[in-house]
Amino acid sequence: MHVHPVSVVGASGYTGLELTRLLARHAHVRVAALYSDRWADEPAGGRLPLSGELAALRYRPLAEAERADGEIVFLATPAEVSAALTPRLLARGARVVDLSGAFRLADPAAYPAWYGFPHPAPELLAEARYGLPELARAGLAGARLVTNPGCYATSIALAVAPLVKSGLVSPDGIVVTGLSGVSGAGRKASEDYSFVEVGDDLRAYRLGRHQHVPEIEQTVLRHAGACGPIAFTPVLVPIRRGILSSVALRLAGGARPADLEGALRAAYAEEPFVKVLAADKVMVKDVLHTNRAHVGVAVDPRAGVALATSAIDNLVKGAAGQAVQAMNAAMGWPETAGLDLLGG
Amino acid sequence: MHVHPVSVVGASGYTGLELTRLLARHAHVRVAALYSDRWADEPAGGRLPLSGELAALRYRPLAEAERADGEIVFLATPAEVSAALTPRLLARGARVVDLSGAFRLADPAAYPAWYGFPHPAPELLAEARYGLPELARAGLAGARLVTNPGCYATSIALAVAPLVKSGLVSPDGIVVTGLSGVSGAGRKASEDYSFVEVGDDLRAYRLGRHQHVPEIEQTVLRHAGACGPIAFTPVLVPIRRGILSSVALRLAGGARPADLEGALRAAYAEEPFVKVLAADKVMVKDVLHTNRAHVGVAVDPRAGVALATSAIDNLVKGAAGQAVQAMNAAMGWPETAGLDLLGG
Amino acid sequence: MHVHPVSVVGASGYTGLELTRLLARHAHVRVAALYSDRWADEPAGGRLPLSGELAALRYRPLAEAERADGEIVFLATPAEVSAALTPRLLARGARVVDLSGAFRLADPAAYPAWYGFPHPAPELLAEARYGLPELARAGLAGARLVTNPGCYATSIALAVAPLVKSGLVSPDGIVVTGLSGVSGAGRKASEDYSFVEVGDDLRAYRLGRHQHVPEIEQTVLRHAGACGPIAFTPVLVPIRRGILSSVALRLAGGARPADLEGALRAAYAEEPFVKVLAADKVMVKDVLHTNRAHVGVAVDPRAGVALATSAIDNLVKGAAGQAVQAMNAAMGWPETAGLDLLGG
Amino acid sequence: MHVHPVSVVGASGYTGLELTRLLARHAHVRVAALYSDRWADEPAGGRLPLSGELAALRYRPLAEAERADGEIVFLATPAEVSAALTPRLLARGARVVDLSGAFRLADPAAYPAWYGFPHPAPELLAEARYGLPELARAGLAGARLVTNPGCYATSIALAVAPLVKSGLVSPDGIVVTGLSGVSGAGRKASEDYSFVEVGDDLRAYRLGRHQHVPEIEQTVLRHAGACGPIAFTPVLVPIRRGILSSVALRLAGGARPADLEGALRAAYAEEPFVKVLAADKVMVKDVLHTNRAHVGVAVDPRAGVALATSAIDNLVKGAAGQAVQAMNAAMGWPETAGLDLLGG
Repeated sequence: MHVHPVSVVGASGYTGLELTRLLARHAHVRVAALYSDRWADEPAGGRLPLSGELAALRYRPLAEAERADGEIVFLATPAEVSAALTPRLLARGARVVDLSGAFRLADPAAYPAWYGFPHPAPELLAEARYGLPELARAGLAGARLVTNPGCYATSIALAVAPLVKSGLVSPDGIVVTGLSGVSGAGRKASEDYSFVEVGDDLRAYRLGRHQHVPEIEQTVLRHAGACGPIAFTPVLVPIRRGILSSVALRLAGGARPADLEGALRAAYAEEPFVKVLAADKVMVKDVLHTNRAHVGVAVDPRAGVALATSAIDNLVKGAAGQAVQAMNAAMGWPETAGLDLLGG
Repeated sequence: MHVHPVSVVGASGYTGLELTRLLARHAHVRVAALYSDRWADEPAGGRLPLSGELAALRYRPLAEAERADGEIVFLATPAEVSAALTPRLLARGARVVDLSGAFRLADPAAYPAWYGFPHPAPELLAEARYGLPELARAGLAGARLVTNPGCYATSIALAVAPLVKSGLVSPDGIVVTGLSGVSGAGRKASEDYSFVEVGDDLRAYRLGRHQHVPEIEQTVLRHAGACGPIAFTPVLVPIRRGILSSVALRLAGGARPADLEGALRAAYAEEPFVKVLAADKVMVKDVLHTNRAHVGVAVDPRAGVALATSAIDNLVKGAAGQAVQAMNAAMGWPETAGLDLLGG
Repeated sequence: MHVHPVSVVGASGYTGLELTRLLARHAHVRVAALYSDRWADEPAGGRLPLSGELAALRYRPLAEAERADGEIVFLATPAEVSAALTPRLLARGARVVDLSGAFRLADPAAYPAWYGFPHPAPELLAEARYGLPELARAGLAGARLVTNPGCYATSIALAVAPLVKSGLVSPDGIVVTGLSGVSGAGRKASEDYSFVEVGDDLRAYRLGRHQHVPEIEQTVLRHAGACGPIAFTPVLVPIRRGILSSVALRLAGGARPADLEGALRAAYAEEPFVKVLAADKVMVKDVLHTNRAHVGVAVDPRAGVALATSAIDNLVKGAAGQAVQAMNAAMGWPETAGLDLLGG
Repeated sequence: MHVHPVSVVGASGYTGLELTRLLARHAHVRVAALYSDRWADEPAGGRLPLSGELAALRYRPLAEAERADGEIVFLATPAEVSAALTPRLLARGARVVDLSGAFRLADPAAYPAWYGFPHPAPELLAEARYGLPELARAGLAGARLVTNPGCYATSIALAVAPLVKSGLVSPDGIVVTGLSGVSGAGRKASEDYSFVEVGDDLRAYRLGRHQHVPEIEQTVLRHAGACGPIAFTPVLVPIRRGILSSVALRLAGGARPADLEGALRAAYAEEPFVKVLAADKVMVKDVLHTNRAHVGVAVDPRAGVALATSAIDNLVKGAAGQAVQAMNAAMGWPETAGLDLLGG
């Protein structure tokens, strides 16, 4: 079988490291190059428990990334870097899987508001395929540019989209609190993310202003046909990795609990990576180091509200694992290829 | 000054321990007796860094608690134990501060549904005074039976009640996700709360069914005059102590952010234990080991929602500290007596 | 290639779970049966992210384990259970890999002292092969009974044995402090291991009396030809998994730092699972979820002492991974088969 | 009673914060000034749950600290800053309690080797009084310059000094592994101390080279009359605060366990802040947020070694609490004044 060369740009971040781990064990690809200024010239085997040729592969400076080796290039870079690199890589003939937010929103006008910069390559937004196969599989096959979903967006959309689509809940008035482990903030030399400041603490941030909000709304709208504004409070919690989302949706008419759970089960019956459980059996520890999402829904009949929960590993299903899954879909490989992760 | 003898029943639980700590340094009281089957006959100084007579005081069996020493008796016992002990203690002439849920709900009919038992002393429910001075100070002076609020209820009601009262948000459609440290579950030899199972994990429990829901609604209703059903998802997070609540309320009319924050500030301007901050500056670590609550509110204008946050230490403002504050109010002492806690 | 049926007895403990994970992805074996009273009749796919036939395999009661299916039977059971089961399994013709301490000590007289029971099958102690390939590879090929090393023993012996063998340090006066994550205590519904009691705490236990002491001394003696009594203090630390050992050895003559590090490097040059680093670069996080050990040594010339460090994942190289490695050695497969774990 | 004005220089570090907390509740002093560049001009009440005048006190820039207000000035500054400030403050007539290492070593020649700088005020080293009252009370009364012990030094010397003094163990061949929470590294915007890097990890650092080694040896020598070089391995563990030291000492002659424990008990019988327990009952959680040290000793008769353990809160007995205790001793106040901390 042909083995396809791939490269990772931004290989020293937490996402880049996880991606390197996953690609190293993927049977259809070969890691041809890793780009990181931070570790430039160091061998990858000094940073990850690799063996063989990959262990000896040396990180290369980011400046070389616009001519990045590989048939497929993964960008685990900040949105502005991705936005600048992608057109050049596509022009070179590479396929790009971008893990930043640079191409997630279809509307260029949304970038200044949510990401703080005008989009430098708006013509690519229409071409980018959203890499969440469970909700947007159509269009991924053969995609030249895959835009990988955000971690919160993955977790939340997987719970919300099928419920809204079922008509059992309203597309309006959705409220979400998302709890994220600290690796979601990336690798940073910041006192704000120091062990002493974060350990034993809980705090909300970017209430109502998180850049994943329009992405979630867009995903639900495309999948379910409707989505009102979502009120979202992200919270930083002292775990290294993992996201749990707590979602409230208004019940439409007389939906019974079994109907709602049935809607989730129907949506994910054939999906290898999504498991439907009772809402209080959805736990972060069960999905850590796997590409799985666990989702569940309960009903509060007094309040007329469906209460859904959703758990993922932010670095796997929320980033690197999903990028591999999307690559698999784009390349026509089984989506589970290289993703038989058994957690731990 | 006269020093009043007090006793603590259920002194070996996390709440009982914290209460013992606080009472030990309270200038107006003297700990006369501590009741705990678990540590019966052990000296208190072996369990807490006490000195003097209190260090030598020996825990006594719970069976002796119905004749508990002391002018004021604190019950840090399960609701059913509290419900059984309280009438006898009151009959003996003691003042009771009950930290369980036994007397929190005014409606006896609510007990089977939310607490799982028919109330054995419904005639006392009308007499019990709710010990959350910031929202229910009237009536506490001279109270013979104080029912101390639940930890989630304290955290949530402090954020919700003044906002609803202000009219700037609707009393309907309130959605809450509450994050609690593990000591909230009490001292338990349960695998579910073992370090390996809880560490690095997040999970929701009792979605829409937590027994603090009717207590919160009752408190908001009394304070603000209206309160619809609240949809509540509690989440267990791997910290030892502390609660952060994330609250969404529907904006009424054209409320501006400054109005909402102003409503909180006005409500708590004279309160020594409540501090109003920006919603993303409300952090658990700042209130740990103090009797303080930090609350804040942000606005999501797109969604028409106010997003409030509220942080307390579940064992202090959420339990033992609040019980001391309520005792102070009942006895006519300054509410801050014995509560000059500087955190850490 | 022939795929060998294997079974795991005690499959619901942390070690049994990890073993199931590893065996599920091992190309040479097929999990034929899993034994656990706790989860009897449940499908394995409800407990681990498995797929296919293995997901549907149901746990069977422990009482059936003496007729356990499989060519190779892994015992992740308490020492007394292993001691009772092993003779029957061997008599049935199975190969046994025992992860308990039941067969680790060659001297039956050591069992009452260190394990608290007289050995019921002393005749098997001479036959048992110690499953630490890096220090005791000879004899593993074809072994019918493999006794898998203890987690502390693995970590400590890997650092101590080559240094003592080199003659650069004395076999006498060795002092060790071992730090272990909480999963080392097994799955227990004990308040002692609850999150609230263990989180934010550090405490030593079984000082000088831990049952791994004679095992370490025996291993070093066999490998290096000499070993005095080792003074060992184990410490419980609030991490879920991982061990870091801190070892002090008296320098013999004028050994230089480079000599000591050289001795480690020479010992492990060909070993795929042991990496030699500077002593302060040995970190638990780098070996988590891998079968690797990281070891290092520094020198304190003032004190005339070598200070070594050693890190493993107690559930992998300290238990399940090592058991797979030893099975590989016993069966004549590459030792790395099924162990290309990339951490995380 | 006269209330003495004091000031804290370096008030925004973890030690400075803890000191401010403690001084705020000390009946004999009044906090007159707080110095911190980081928080210059902010009111202290925004950083700590203070009330009254102290809440309104504004941090002042460090540049003003050489004319620091107050009869007593606490320096919670790096060693080089303390070394520069102290002579000026003494010249101004202030009493100085320095929490850095600037004046801990009597021998100026030790500074370049262990602290990396030549001492700028060697003439003060002889005058500085070591602020560990339990081992060096003589000389503290009336001291003009108190040098506050290091956190590891406090923990280790409290266990070692009385045992060596008893003659039951040798002053030679002492081996220590010290486990410290992350606040011991100070407040730092460093990736090395980020939650993701430190959480779930254990690592040793500065093996045999930690600057507290000569301080411990000097303290034991002064107290017990003899002390050989100590081999010390410090380890960083993922807790916010607390130190547990594991100490091995060679038994001299036929010492029995009861003799060793008796030596500790005799040494500390009158000490309010040191509690002697069984070695495996010494736990960090019991001393957190208190000025207490818990010490214990076990015996390994096979190895001929005494195994001692010692626990403190690095920010209280290991820093700020001890500084207050030493101030109390210097001023002739009860040593426990302001230190009736009940943990939590």
